[in-house]
Amino acid sequence: MDPDAVAKAFVDHYYSTFDANRAGLGNLYQDNSMLTFEGQKIQGSPNIVAKLSSLPFQQCKHSVSTVDCQPSGPTGGMLVFVSGNLQLAGEQHALKFSQMFHLMPTPQGSFFVQNDIFRLNYA
Amino acid sequence: MDPDAVAKAFVDHYYSTFDANRAGLGNLYQDNSMLTFEGQKIQGSPNIVAKLSSLPFQQCKHSVSTVDCQPSGPTGGMLVFVSGNLQLAGEQHALKFSQMFHLMPTPQGSFFVQNDIFRLNYA
Repeated sequence: MDPDAVAKAFVDHYYSTFDANRAGLGNLYQDNSMLTFEGQKIQGSPNIVAKLSSLPFQQCKHSVSTVDCQPSGPTGGMLVFVSGNLQLAGEQHALKFSQMFHLMPTPQGSFFVQNDIFRLNYA
Repeated sequence: MDPDAVAKAFVDHYYSTFDANRAGLGNLYQDNSMLTFEGQKIQGSPNIVAKLSSLPFQQCKHSVSTVDCQPSGPTGGMLVFVSGNLQLAGEQHALKFSQMFHLMPTPQGSFFVQNDIFRLNYA
């Protein structure tokens, strides 16, 4: 499968899950996965899901503007770089964000998120 | 050395070199390095330097707002995620950008850029 298509499919799945049911993101991470969210470092799927679930908004909608991807090296990993807008329920203006994922292959032929770094882009 | 300090030192070196002498960035990349610049994929140090040197502005100044880093896996690599502003000579307003680097260790104990993805964040 074309890497760009894999990246696009991952990104669509990730944000649709995030916007519908953040707890459902847990199976995309593993115990050694890392998230840096606005500078805060969190490790491991349970802690990452707890962080994402505790964000101070109930409903949100991600709109992806760009998706770039590159192979990350000989391990079969893939780097995915996303920019987009995040609309929070009740807020007039969307927030701009950038996020990168380092995806690593699983023995089952899928990918999990090894690294995840998220930043809002303040205007 | 603390990974955050390594990341910060790399970022400082990268952008000060970019702003003073873009051709000097060549020794940070290798033949298998990849740059995705605003969606355009370029491979190899000479091609990357040619691309950066051909950007349609002579003088610029990067101002870094945030630097996040994570180890990228068992290979000793490091992911560095940057947000900041890019001021072009003669332009009134700075442009916002996000950029990620995947740094890999060299036998000499330094790092080279395996992956580089750059995007402007349009308001």
